[in-house]
Amino acid sequence: MAGNLLGDPTERDLYVYLPPGYEDSDERYPTAYLLHYFGSSAQELVYPRADKERWSPPLQDVLDPVFTRLNTPPMIVVIPDGWTSYGCGQWVDSPVGGNFESYLLHDVVTHVDEHFRTIPQASSRGVFGFSSGGFGAWHVVSRHPEAFSALAMLSGDSYFDLTHKPMLYEYLDSIWPEAPKGPVEAIYMSQMIYALASCYSPNPDNPPYYVDLPMDFPSGEIKSEVWNQWLSFDPVVNWRDRFDNLRQLKGILLDVGARDDISLQWGHRLLSHYLGEAGIVHEASEHAGNHGSRSRERYQVSLQWLATVLERGGA
Amino acid sequence: MAGNLLGDPTERDLYVYLPPGYEDSDERYPTAYLLHYFGSSAQELVYPRADKERWSPPLQDVLDPVFTRLNTPPMIVVIPDGWTSYGCGQWVDSPVGGNFESYLLHDVVTHVDEHFRTIPQASSRGVFGFSSGGFGAWHVVSRHPEAFSALAMLSGDSYFDLTHKPMLYEYLDSIWPEAPKGPVEAIYMSQMIYALASCYSPNPDNPPYYVDLPMDFPSGEIKSEVWNQWLSFDPVVNWRDRFDNLRQLKGILLDVGARDDISLQWGHRLLSHYLGEAGIVHEASEHAGNHGSRSRERYQVSLQWLATVLERGGA
Amino acid sequence: MAGNLLGDPTERDLYVYLPPGYEDSDERYPTAYLLHYFGSSAQELVYPRADKERWSPPLQDVLDPVFTRLNTPPMIVVIPDGWTSYGCGQWVDSPVGGNFESYLLHDVVTHVDEHFRTIPQASSRGVFGFSSGGFGAWHVVSRHPEAFSALAMLSGDSYFDLTHKPMLYEYLDSIWPEAPKGPVEAIYMSQMIYALASCYSPNPDNPPYYVDLPMDFPSGEIKSEVWNQWLSFDPVVNWRDRFDNLRQLKGILLDVGARDDISLQWGHRLLSHYLGEAGIVHEASEHAGNHGSRSRERYQVSLQWLATVLERGGA
Amino acid sequence: MAGNLLGDPTERDLYVYLPPGYEDSDERYPTAYLLHYFGSSAQELVYPRADKERWSPPLQDVLDPVFTRLNTPPMIVVIPDGWTSYGCGQWVDSPVGGNFESYLLHDVVTHVDEHFRTIPQASSRGVFGFSSGGFGAWHVVSRHPEAFSALAMLSGDSYFDLTHKPMLYEYLDSIWPEAPKGPVEAIYMSQMIYALASCYSPNPDNPPYYVDLPMDFPSGEIKSEVWNQWLSFDPVVNWRDRFDNLRQLKGILLDVGARDDISLQWGHRLLSHYLGEAGIVHEASEHAGNHGSRSRERYQVSLQWLATVLERGGA
Repeated sequence: MAGNLLGDPTERDLYVYLPPGYEDSDERYPTAYLLHYFGSSAQELVYPRADKERWSPPLQDVLDPVFTRLNTPPMIVVIPDGWTSYGCGQWVDSPVGGNFESYLLHDVVTHVDEHFRTIPQASSRGVFGFSSGGFGAWHVVSRHPEAFSALAMLSGDSYFDLTHKPMLYEYLDSIWPEAPKGPVEAIYMSQMIYALASCYSPNPDNPPYYVDLPMDFPSGEIKSEVWNQWLSFDPVVNWRDRFDNLRQLKGILLDVGARDDISLQWGHRLLSHYLGEAGIVHEASEHAGNHGSRSRERYQVSLQWLATVLERGGA
Repeated sequence: MAGNLLGDPTERDLYVYLPPGYEDSDERYPTAYLLHYFGSSAQELVYPRADKERWSPPLQDVLDPVFTRLNTPPMIVVIPDGWTSYGCGQWVDSPVGGNFESYLLHDVVTHVDEHFRTIPQASSRGVFGFSSGGFGAWHVVSRHPEAFSALAMLSGDSYFDLTHKPMLYEYLDSIWPEAPKGPVEAIYMSQMIYALASCYSPNPDNPPYYVDLPMDFPSGEIKSEVWNQWLSFDPVVNWRDRFDNLRQLKGILLDVGARDDISLQWGHRLLSHYLGEAGIVHEASEHAGNHGSRSRERYQVSLQWLATVLERGGA
Repeated sequence: MAGNLLGDPTERDLYVYLPPGYEDSDERYPTAYLLHYFGSSAQELVYPRADKERWSPPLQDVLDPVFTRLNTPPMIVVIPDGWTSYGCGQWVDSPVGGNFESYLLHDVVTHVDEHFRTIPQASSRGVFGFSSGGFGAWHVVSRHPEAFSALAMLSGDSYFDLTHKPMLYEYLDSIWPEAPKGPVEAIYMSQMIYALASCYSPNPDNPPYYVDLPMDFPSGEIKSEVWNQWLSFDPVVNWRDRFDNLRQLKGILLDVGARDDISLQWGHRLLSHYLGEAGIVHEASEHAGNHGSRSRERYQVSLQWLATVLERGGA
Repeated sequence: MAGNLLGDPTERDLYVYLPPGYEDSDERYPTAYLLHYFGSSAQELVYPRADKERWSPPLQDVLDPVFTRLNTPPMIVVIPDGWTSYGCGQWVDSPVGGNFESYLLHDVVTHVDEHFRTIPQASSRGVFGFSSGGFGAWHVVSRHPEAFSALAMLSGDSYFDLTHKPMLYEYLDSIWPEAPKGPVEAIYMSQMIYALASCYSPNPDNPPYYVDLPMDFPSGEIKSEVWNQWLSFDPVVNWRDRFDNLRQLKGILLDVGARDDISLQWGHRLLSHYLGEAGIVHEASEHAGNHGSRSRERYQVSLQWLATVLERGGA
């Protein structure tokens, strides 16, 4: 994480959930990596703020029932931190936001395997997450089958032409007629656009924000070369280049709400369509919720699914 | 429950939650009665439907952490059923909707005390609930200090002049220019108004709906005598008549969201003001949520509070 | 207008619309007084601001078609100013906001009769207006049949128990947990409540805002004596005291949108119900609009109606 | 109009507004063609329905002030009909919806020139319209400088990639999980998509709806060849091919609300940017409104502008 241009901390929280029974056994366990979403952090995911209008339980209250009431075979759950001062590092490597992909792949996995009784092999490691965390699960696992063998993408960023392009203009509308001038706390869309740009089109030579925006101001014209950089991160685009990797995986789960607030159901449907046509085995499911309304339940569903996919009793 | 004019079932579900450790001890426990809200049932509260846009965990996942992670001293939690085909019996006695107050007081408490290791005395029994369930907690406990000694009213129906009177017109608007003709499934407000009327102004001699509505159609004129019947159930009104009862209680908790969708914060504030002026000890708290956004957390808070109020180790 | 405690200007704009043909004749005409609504002014009504999201035509473009395309017999239309720095004087006499009732009754009518070819008698004078202007039409005409003989109340303030009481709490909610401290430009409800209080419960001995509010802070308790002052201005209340006046009028038109944003349709319906029961002849109509969506059309309808009611060819 | 596959009437209303003074002179006048928007008709534009929540004045009340109060030099205003049973013919030629472009160009112009004292030359003819009517003004005039010399595009359909593509998915969402099966009255988006397809990608060989939709169901994949047909109608795309035509025009006005509900401000900005870069003289303005909130005023503004652009005193 050293050297990110945002000046964000290079030491990060890492939370590890040990399943019931861990202390009383010397068993080794599969490991599920849970990637958090945009605007959050590992700490916020584990201990959600209690002063908001809507309430989320501590993550423990979501995970405990998976392994008790629901009788899911035990796994270790790891919650790394991907927060940046722009909002999220999208779990990619960026000279601006930080190298979250490498951090996860090397630092986190290594640390976990060294300190806990994991089954230290790809076939026993999976990644799951919601929204940017779902995007991260796709991004990291589809590029690194040597490290992970399963991914659950929950309401993950995809089909940028439909879902992200309107955000560019929503951002401009939110500051119009002023020109873009960096992420501003009070303007959510400004944080979103600069965060995504810091990940998909970082430009260390372009101070003070170190990003290229994919649209011109005030004309609104799309800058094709920058937008194509973004699209190279889009699952509905990059699955082709990762075809060989995807075929090696033991499991791919795509899950989304049919009424996603930013229409991510269409990215999921399109990706599932492409994967299906290419003969890549995967599961695709939809629920009745919108973007965020069922994320906690979906963590439980993902863990139940990972338990059926990841190798157990190895090592 | 026999003889209700709605023809609703006279046998009801009764759920009893036994705290961790119950099976391994012969201890006796305080008992907390949890009353559900309008439009729901005991079953729905314990096992929420899983196909809705928003997700609620099974009640067990809400209660378990109270007694494990949060280290609250154990209590038995009882979840009786107050559903009616009009939407809710408001936990009062009505010749139309059913005698839910009596059912709770006699059938449920007796059954629970007989079959579980409760501490069978008022000082070890409390009632809590949200919305109509909070109203019910107020209604039953403020009338029966001989049976219960603590109540937690969470976002409870109150200050009908501000909160319920507009609903009468909202209902008329929803069917205008048609005249009222009973509860209709597709029109939520019709169910609400007829349900409340079946509890507060039932009229067995007025088929086919067996209620008096408190407003005239089409003039909208309030019928004073009917409206006064409703007001006699309003906590900001009836606390005076129950002053002696309220003084005997060991605890009163009033909790509400500062942005309640039907302005119940004002009923809570006004009730707290009156109680305070009358010297009735109580706790009043507010959170940042709206009507329903934090109900599960508030169940946890209520149980933590009841554990400090109810007598333990008695009998 | 001299001596108002808000320090608002004592000289006011007065607009007079002369119908097509006025210049080419020496005829005398009935006069229709058009009272503007809350938050506006005579100038704004005649020449609406052109920079708003929604556009309203200059008043001339509303009035001209009445007397040309629609062939309504010509009338003089007078637009007096009732603006105050709190938002509106509600066309009543107040030591705080100003004596708008007296100003209209004496200064304006006298001036108009002296300078224009009016028919200077009550039977040829009518008042109409929308929202606070509709309230003003009711207020002034129902108290002064010696000066006016017809009123058209369009979506007029009424049934304060249903429509205005919730506003008191909406105001408190908008500043909560701060205490009320006068009208603030950015908070619409603060202006509304202080404006109404400056008219209905002014208190010259209570600086710096010179009003009594009808609710306590923070309890929200209604102060009965102040609220009763407000109710004395409510058409659904004060019609009884003005029964003899109302019977003398040549015409009463009550018109409202069935989906009024603050439920004024119920004030209109209730008032019409009371008038009907008391045998006071009036016309009551409803349209498909909400509070403000058809106000310009309703001015046209009112003028067409006034033309059928007011005496012509007198003097 | 003969032979349209929707079976819509081949005889159409044609309204002609003659300016004040026409009858008393033998002057010849420039002619402004006003094209109506989607979901409307010539009749509805001239005589808007009076039973809607919001009210619009008869068109005469919008046009009269232009030539009286605002002193605009007189013009004839022609309102042709472009209604189809799918919602609108977009003023293009289609074997399915009808040949509205040809109808306007030949039938309407010829008829008007024959029956009214127009100046029968391109330099004295302009076209204006709002929304689909603004699109139509662009479409017809940019293709036919031999017939018209000025266009005012008010909030006109443009930048389909941003504004229309999301509609495809909004439509699918509105019927999901059912497959598309034609325009349905209750589902606005179904009418919109089939209407646009009947204009931009008609397919007489594809009964029963005779259109190709540009997206696949259920995958949501864009069909490139069909979408490219749509894009060929997009002003931000087709201006290049019409460069020589556009340079011949005497005036181009692009006007849009900065808060357009379907983001048409970005189509306008982008088009203006392209025209500016290409050296095509035009005027671009924005107002504070949203999509429909100022359309009547904009008709007035357009007529004032056309009066300065079109040749007068010709013939």
